[in-house]
Amino acid sequence: MSAPVIAVVGGGQLARMMAPAAGELGVHLRVLVEAPGTSAAQVVTDAPVGAATDEGAIRDLIAPADGRAPADVLTFEHEHVPNDLLADLIEHGTPVRPAPHALVQAQDKIVMRRRLTELGAPCPRWVPLPVDPEQGHATLAGFLAEVGGQAVVKTSRGGYDGKGVRVVSSADEAADWLAAAAAGGPQLLVEEKVPFTRELAVLVARRPSGEVRTWPVVESIQRDGVCSEVIAPAPDLTADEAEEARQVAVAIAEGLDVTGVLAVEMFEVAEGPDGAVGSADGRPARRVLVNELAMRPHNSGHWTIDGSVTSQFEQHLRAVLDLPLGDTSTTAPWTVMANVLGSSLPALTDALPDVLGAFPDARVNLYGKEVRPGRKLAHVNVSGQDLGEVRRRALGAAALLRGEPLPENRTDEKKA
Amino acid sequence: MSAPVIAVVGGGQLARMMAPAAGELGVHLRVLVEAPGTSAAQVVTDAPVGAATDEGAIRDLIAPADGRAPADVLTFEHEHVPNDLLADLIEHGTPVRPAPHALVQAQDKIVMRRRLTELGAPCPRWVPLPVDPEQGHATLAGFLAEVGGQAVVKTSRGGYDGKGVRVVSSADEAADWLAAAAAGGPQLLVEEKVPFTRELAVLVARRPSGEVRTWPVVESIQRDGVCSEVIAPAPDLTADEAEEARQVAVAIAEGLDVTGVLAVEMFEVAEGPDGAVGSADGRPARRVLVNELAMRPHNSGHWTIDGSVTSQFEQHLRAVLDLPLGDTSTTAPWTVMANVLGSSLPALTDALPDVLGAFPDARVNLYGKEVRPGRKLAHVNVSGQDLGEVRRRALGAAALLRGEPLPENRTDEKKA
Repeated sequence: MSAPVIAVVGGGQLARMMAPAAGELGVHLRVLVEAPGTSAAQVVTDAPVGAATDEGAIRDLIAPADGRAPADVLTFEHEHVPNDLLADLIEHGTPVRPAPHALVQAQDKIVMRRRLTELGAPCPRWVPLPVDPEQGHATLAGFLAEVGGQAVVKTSRGGYDGKGVRVVSSADEAADWLAAAAAGGPQLLVEEKVPFTRELAVLVARRPSGEVRTWPVVESIQRDGVCSEVIAPAPDLTADEAEEARQVAVAIAEGLDVTGVLAVEMFEVAEGPDGAVGSADGRPARRVLVNELAMRPHNSGHWTIDGSVTSQFEQHLRAVLDLPLGDTSTTAPWTVMANVLGSSLPALTDALPDVLGAFPDARVNLYGKEVRPGRKLAHVNVSGQDLGEVRRRALGAAALLRGEPLPENRTDEKKA
Repeated sequence: MSAPVIAVVGGGQLARMMAPAAGELGVHLRVLVEAPGTSAAQVVTDAPVGAATDEGAIRDLIAPADGRAPADVLTFEHEHVPNDLLADLIEHGTPVRPAPHALVQAQDKIVMRRRLTELGAPCPRWVPLPVDPEQGHATLAGFLAEVGGQAVVKTSRGGYDGKGVRVVSSADEAADWLAAAAAGGPQLLVEEKVPFTRELAVLVARRPSGEVRTWPVVESIQRDGVCSEVIAPAPDLTADEAEEARQVAVAIAEGLDVTGVLAVEMFEVAEGPDGAVGSADGRPARRVLVNELAMRPHNSGHWTIDGSVTSQFEQHLRAVLDLPLGDTSTTAPWTVMANVLGSSLPALTDALPDVLGAFPDARVNLYGKEVRPGRKLAHVNVSGQDLGEVRRRALGAAALLRGEPLPENRTDEKKA
């Protein structure tokens, strides 16, 4: 057989970071990019331009009219692809991974919550809000009374990175969204505002023939609803707690029949189901509640590029081709990923002399994007033995890429 | 400033393996490839076709007529570029790294031996052979008498991977090469056939502003004159021996004013200069003799992709852009690189199900080349704690990619 061809919808940094893995495996990547010169288009030789919602573009991605080899599988770097088209592609013989029946769980939060509840996965309390605005208002008011205080209203579809999420104390505060839903906008659901101690994430990979691998549970630190830092593995987690989180994620991957990489974002909450204080050191027992799902390589897994034997990007390609999955062991005791969200510099490459000079061990990964406020422009991974030092270095390198001074200890940054 | 642009001459696997590093650093790579679809052309979006000896192609690589950004620096994945042209480019303001005055030392073995001898670098005994065939014959015969037994005749230019090298016991055995040299072919030199215990290599990176970094000394195992396996770090080497080898390599990088990555291939010989037995454990003292130089990323450094914080490919890009160099620490006690030279399979990707299944921790790197006997098609890196196990796994994975059965212990390959 000739080299396998993987078609990917979406030309951002996630598709960009698949490219090195594809090269190493000898796999041909064909990426549908939104415009010439996107993050992925800079590093993928076969990058036709088209919209993810354009049926013709997707069909040509899979079976190019000009005679390039047809794709062996279709996958995604985001979930915004019409499922009817995907179902039709599958019917005509193209594997789509993850398949639409799985993908819908990452597209529609109401569908997802229903299914997770059926599977017995631990979730925050939640209810869908009726489309009728008066009924929706009443349901929301009742939910708020039940949970006491605040709750989180979410759009069922289209939200990401803190968008489509609003914390409310009264039903009136969601009046505009309720009206929008009634007018044909996205449906709404409401969830309890979980008093979490921190956020965790578990990354799982699963191939069609059933093999599943997970990476260690990580701690994910958000800023304004966007992932800003990931610590791998999550500090101060007992083996039992890590195993519980892992099992929740694996059960979801299997229960939803996910193929490829699945990121399960979780809340860690301090109390056990019955409020018991559990662990031997007197620390309250902890459990996890599922927050969000993403069926693709995810920001919480960028650390794997430098901190694990197999990166999430390579694993995703292996999984969607139904190839055996790779070793997910860590290559260092700690790896910290720091995101670069926006920058005061005209271009991030301007910071390379400073950042590479100050942090020779920093693994800098620039996405080739134009600078815009708050935009995900790059990340940095640092690995090592001492978590405090590793964090300080990762955050310092990210600060320099944002055009900011080092947070602290500027003078001792140069490693001996 | 906008993204730096690095122009690279040569479209093989070395340029291919620069691509992931360029992507991560946000650097634009423009590679002059020998033909469409070469190893590098598959993964580099800006890959004009042209010969390394074509002045117009090189000039267009640096300053494209169509208005693409000019290159900030010119570098190479092989040494076969006309030096006159490079000198002219430098005169007109394009940095060429390594510069021709350094590069010539990797192009011409007589020039290299003369300069290394001047620098005091330890070399095998050697003499250049006069172009006149009778004088050449006499010089060779005299050298053979002096060293006793055998010697190695080499073409001064054009040799690589065992080509341009012949072991002779009498001057008559080189008669055809002497005649060819007299007829305008490459000049010849003769070197003693060193009774080496093994081959070592030291990889150095140096930037124009002077910063130098080395990776640990490795053992390089050749098969038919071609690198087949590399063990990092070289086992059973004392700290003093490693430091001596390192210092030899650094002195060469500095003495020759190399910029970018330099690989110094060395022979390890068992006796000290005076035949003394030196070390405390009664083992004969060892010293190194310089064998060959390569001024670019080199096969002896492929292990760094998975076994070092900074790979030789990223380091080369950083060095030629005069950016601060990266940490060269290892990420595991042992990393073994096994080359795949030829295969009985129609395509190496055919072996992916087997090789990834048997060795989930193997870092497989396919070069996207058509299979031909003895051709460098791929390599595999395996890292770990136990050298015997690491070697067995790397060699096993390479065997599967060659279409061969596993060397041994087939049944226990699946990792628990």
